[in-house]
Amino acid sequence: MGLDALFSPRAVAVVGASNRELTIGYRIIENLHEFGYRGPVYPVNPKGGEIRGLTAYPSILDTPDPVDVAHVVIRNKYVPACVEDCAKKGVQAVIINTAGFREIGGEGAALEDQLVEIAKRTGIRVFGPNCQGIINTDEKVRAYCNFTFTRPASGNISIVAQSGGVGEVIHQRIAELNVGVRQYASNGNACDVSIPEIIQHYGDDEQTKVIVVHIESLPDPRAFLEAATEVTRRKPILGMKVGRTAEGAQAVSSHTGGLVKQDTAIELIFEKAGIVSFRNIEEMCQAAIGFASQPVPAGNRVGMIANTGGPAIIATDELVEGGMVMPPLSRQTETTLREKLYPEASINNPIDVLATAGPEHFAAAINALLDDDGIDAIFLNFVTPFFVDTLGIAHEIAGANSRSRKPIVATVMTEKTGWAETLKVIRDGGVPTYDMPETGAKVLTTMGQYAAFLKRPAEHPVSYSDVDAERARSIINVASDANQSCLSAQEDYELLTCYGIPVARYASAGDVAECLAAADEIGYPVVLKVDAESIVHKTESGGVVLDIRDRESLREHAEALAGRFAAAAPRFLVQQQLSEGREVIVGAKEVPGLGHVVMFGLGGIYVEVLQDVSFKITPLTQREAREMIESLQTAPLLTGVRGQTGVDLAALTEIIQRVSQMLVDNPEIRELDLNPIFALQQGATAVDVRVLI
Amino acid sequence: MGLDALFSPRAVAVVGASNRELTIGYRIIENLHEFGYRGPVYPVNPKGGEIRGLTAYPSILDTPDPVDVAHVVIRNKYVPACVEDCAKKGVQAVIINTAGFREIGGEGAALEDQLVEIAKRTGIRVFGPNCQGIINTDEKVRAYCNFTFTRPASGNISIVAQSGGVGEVIHQRIAELNVGVRQYASNGNACDVSIPEIIQHYGDDEQTKVIVVHIESLPDPRAFLEAATEVTRRKPILGMKVGRTAEGAQAVSSHTGGLVKQDTAIELIFEKAGIVSFRNIEEMCQAAIGFASQPVPAGNRVGMIANTGGPAIIATDELVEGGMVMPPLSRQTETTLREKLYPEASINNPIDVLATAGPEHFAAAINALLDDDGIDAIFLNFVTPFFVDTLGIAHEIAGANSRSRKPIVATVMTEKTGWAETLKVIRDGGVPTYDMPETGAKVLTTMGQYAAFLKRPAEHPVSYSDVDAERARSIINVASDANQSCLSAQEDYELLTCYGIPVARYASAGDVAECLAAADEIGYPVVLKVDAESIVHKTESGGVVLDIRDRESLREHAEALAGRFAAAAPRFLVQQQLSEGREVIVGAKEVPGLGHVVMFGLGGIYVEVLQDVSFKITPLTQREAREMIESLQTAPLLTGVRGQTGVDLAALTEIIQRVSQMLVDNPEIRELDLNPIFALQQGATAVDVRVLI
Repeated sequence: MGLDALFSPRAVAVVGASNRELTIGYRIIENLHEFGYRGPVYPVNPKGGEIRGLTAYPSILDTPDPVDVAHVVIRNKYVPACVEDCAKKGVQAVIINTAGFREIGGEGAALEDQLVEIAKRTGIRVFGPNCQGIINTDEKVRAYCNFTFTRPASGNISIVAQSGGVGEVIHQRIAELNVGVRQYASNGNACDVSIPEIIQHYGDDEQTKVIVVHIESLPDPRAFLEAATEVTRRKPILGMKVGRTAEGAQAVSSHTGGLVKQDTAIELIFEKAGIVSFRNIEEMCQAAIGFASQPVPAGNRVGMIANTGGPAIIATDELVEGGMVMPPLSRQTETTLREKLYPEASINNPIDVLATAGPEHFAAAINALLDDDGIDAIFLNFVTPFFVDTLGIAHEIAGANSRSRKPIVATVMTEKTGWAETLKVIRDGGVPTYDMPETGAKVLTTMGQYAAFLKRPAEHPVSYSDVDAERARSIINVASDANQSCLSAQEDYELLTCYGIPVARYASAGDVAECLAAADEIGYPVVLKVDAESIVHKTESGGVVLDIRDRESLREHAEALAGRFAAAAPRFLVQQQLSEGREVIVGAKEVPGLGHVVMFGLGGIYVEVLQDVSFKITPLTQREAREMIESLQTAPLLTGVRGQTGVDLAALTEIIQRVSQMLVDNPEIRELDLNPIFALQQGATAVDVRVLI
Repeated sequence: MGLDALFSPRAVAVVGASNRELTIGYRIIENLHEFGYRGPVYPVNPKGGEIRGLTAYPSILDTPDPVDVAHVVIRNKYVPACVEDCAKKGVQAVIINTAGFREIGGEGAALEDQLVEIAKRTGIRVFGPNCQGIINTDEKVRAYCNFTFTRPASGNISIVAQSGGVGEVIHQRIAELNVGVRQYASNGNACDVSIPEIIQHYGDDEQTKVIVVHIESLPDPRAFLEAATEVTRRKPILGMKVGRTAEGAQAVSSHTGGLVKQDTAIELIFEKAGIVSFRNIEEMCQAAIGFASQPVPAGNRVGMIANTGGPAIIATDELVEGGMVMPPLSRQTETTLREKLYPEASINNPIDVLATAGPEHFAAAINALLDDDGIDAIFLNFVTPFFVDTLGIAHEIAGANSRSRKPIVATVMTEKTGWAETLKVIRDGGVPTYDMPETGAKVLTTMGQYAAFLKRPAEHPVSYSDVDAERARSIINVASDANQSCLSAQEDYELLTCYGIPVARYASAGDVAECLAAADEIGYPVVLKVDAESIVHKTESGGVVLDIRDRESLREHAEALAGRFAAAAPRFLVQQQLSEGREVIVGAKEVPGLGHVVMFGLGGIYVEVLQDVSFKITPLTQREAREMIESLQTAPLLTGVRGQTGVDLAALTEIIQRVSQMLVDNPEIRELDLNPIFALQQGATAVDVRVLI
């Protein structure tokens, strides 16, 4: 239970406490008091005296035992010494609100390095620096270790945000919507206590039902991926990554002082870990409210009830575009509704109960959908006409929700003063209630996405046992030891062969005679390539001759290449010339701290003009490999189109998985390019390959 | 000034007035009173007596003169007779709130037809039926001819919504955000007074600064396109079309009782008319608020000021993804800012003035951007730290806005109770203020889109003078008179030739000998096609032979076809065989009530697998024709890629425009397919064509 002392401190000290109201050293104490913190608060100030009615201690070392958390709000250069004292005192965690560390570079970065060193040496945990802090609304704790202004009610949404500004916007928005929060953390520079750890902590916290995460950059993407993957099976994580555009990434960089290396990878991390991804704070907050109060739907089939048509259409568009379905109602449901609704009511999906519908009509419609096995979730579109008993309708909605095991999401379109009580009854009944049909529909769509993720079978990457990992390692080691930055052509093909990846038949040859012998063995036509580490761009420099059809021609070309590249003293690679098949590409790139990202796409103009490629992070499961193929816009060219039979998808899926296994076994590979692979109706064969290490 | 009497009635009658509070006949009178309607209100009820303190008249004919607007809230079957009476009385417009007309089909539709007939015959205008009504906040009018609950403040946003439910949601949301409305209309079944007319009315209303439109279906799309096109040059129209998905369209259809034919066309209409398109009510409302209070920017260059980094990054992503740019600051601006901001402030775009920045820092940053000629609009990201003078900052923002001719949009992230005064000062200063960085950024992006539209030169379609329109008409007339549903191959090619659209050389032949003579003239290789109206699918039925290289071969094939299709007594078409060039397609389809939608795309898999095609409505300008080509994802295959020269774009642009001219001249054409056209480095030639009439 790594961060328990941080989130549930028995006592809190504030080093740099002050009596001046507009200082952080005053504000934190005020916040702790006003929020009803259950433990003692110890102001620390060299002058001693009294601060906000509390005895101030000259040093952290003078405070009575035990102190679990100490805020540090003194000038940056005094912080390391203070943290040393805190460690000496036995403080479990320091929250360093002070700025002026890595984000200002130079001297600040050096100070931050000292903090990391102290944490490692003494075991004290450092939260921040340049951060807000944490909040825990647990009735037994009530810790507001933070200088901000939002006073959350107790609830079951937990928030972690790298940016304090964004964290506060999220927090404030949820509070404004009268929804409670469980725990909150904004860890700024994150030099020690990390977002993955906080996610893990929220994952282990029973009262947290949904986790909201805001990220600007990921110092340790693999740790994040692993923590999130572990947690998302138990509870939803809603995530937002900013810095998507070059300009945005630039702003992140000048804001956090960190380089942003893994931008595109973060969306892939979210996807792999099952994090529900957002591009928008508002939508993330609204979704959190839905998840916090409702069960996850069993599937994506929505039944909609409306008392006016227009908003129902908007909600329908949004749901269907988001992948939800609105199936026809069951025969039984139709019969029930025909009996219980107005004769003019529309018994479709959406059900239009009519503007004149009262509580009994709403109740009938909701209950019918709750009983309909073809419906996983209920969406209500409720406009409050002045001529019906809206309060009665509200009570029916709330009552149905208390009995329901299907999620109910409502759009209530009203004038909020006049119909305040109606709104309150629905909300107090636990039904998440939105102003706009599209907002509610987006929330339910998100819940459907998470439901789909939960249905994914937990699948492990295939480990092919026919690979010669040892031989592969030695190829890489030899090349590494020789300081090669790329493998020779022969090494390339051998490496693939070690991992059972089909390559066009090839042989290495030292001279013209060996070339001729190799070609006799392989059979014409052949391709001839010079092979020397110093010749990187073989094709561009004329070192590759395609479609050689006979010995005479091969001899001529081999002699010409030998003469031309004499300075490089090259060997040769003689290779079977393949021409059939659909060209595809499998590529990979190392992402520091994460592993490799694998790319798949069709070759030629499809990749160059349409940039129709898919990416995923290693290690790849069979499902993921298949998805890489199927998610392409051009996938029909592989699966078959216009009456043509498709290519061997199983063979491609297997190549992708074998590449993944090779990359995991050999992290030295920086870049890999199987381009092209010829995909046939039966089988697929790589005809060119390039490996950088 | 067609709808002036409707929107500014001198007196209002309510036929079906009632003393029962929960009826529409009571509610409208209450609304008129509470909203401060300036004219007299005449309740009409056969029982006479007094209603809400007013004398009730037994019939509309008994009311004192003049009555401009009469609400009709009596049972559907009594409505036509009542409207006759209203016409007799000299009422200018009836607002029929009663439902039970076209939306219930059968009898209701017949009643609605009667209303249309009365309107045509007597000149009375019918608003509705099955509708809410209108609102006019003008101080001299204060007409609340509507039964709903939103009480708008006066402002300069005018709203028209087909759906009353959605109209109310829009209206309510704008009111909730404390922004004023100018006029409001929701016309339900819209049997007479139409949305295009209302748009025209708002366009002519000087106090209306921005128009918000919600549409479910368009009975007269051409009238809508023309009205909108005329208005958007003067003021922005923000539009939302629902029923985008099949399920949504189905819901529209069961809601309005009308068929939805022109779904995809509506987005094209919006685009052609310069309507800013939304998929989301909330975003449309927020944008309306921006347009209502700020000038349109001169361009898309945004300068951003922030006092915390995180939200600025989110806003940057949103702006840049929406097509705005965030240019570097001018040298002068940098110098000024270095002098006036904190030394640690970030002098980039976004400018980070730091959380500790006070009024003078914000003022300096805003003024520097107002003076920077490289900046068209200012975006503020303002979090309210407790330790700075936020009220002072608010006054600086409001003050700058009053002097500014550039739009200023602000995101103010705060706790709205504690900082109510700060918020109020900014809002009262006329700066549109949003809770979320992404929301404000989207609004500014929308304003940039409208600015880009205003910059489009007003361009007219080219009218080619070398066309033989008369000959073309006679071809179509002859075919029409013969009840042909498609033209013969010869007619197809002749028609294109009349419009100067290059086609592969061809000749019509009556028998084998004429085929041979024609081929001698054209030159081998040739294509041979049977040509008879009864043979529709020539290729599928084996009626087309490609690549005939000599006389022997041609004779053989011609004889074979003559035998095979003897029953149809066909003629033949002999055509030059072309093979070079990039295959493209130009197609067109009639959209009833609108004209034609023209399609352009690359042939083969690009259209079939990638569905990468573009659409636009006739008549097409040169810019539009060019955009059809350039907007394709596969456009690089035409403009040139991988070192290949592109095709003759001017030739393709001209073909598209000539097709447009042909379609406008010949509305009988139901469908047209030039597939393929071979596009070359020089020129482009249609090699197959099919015209349905």
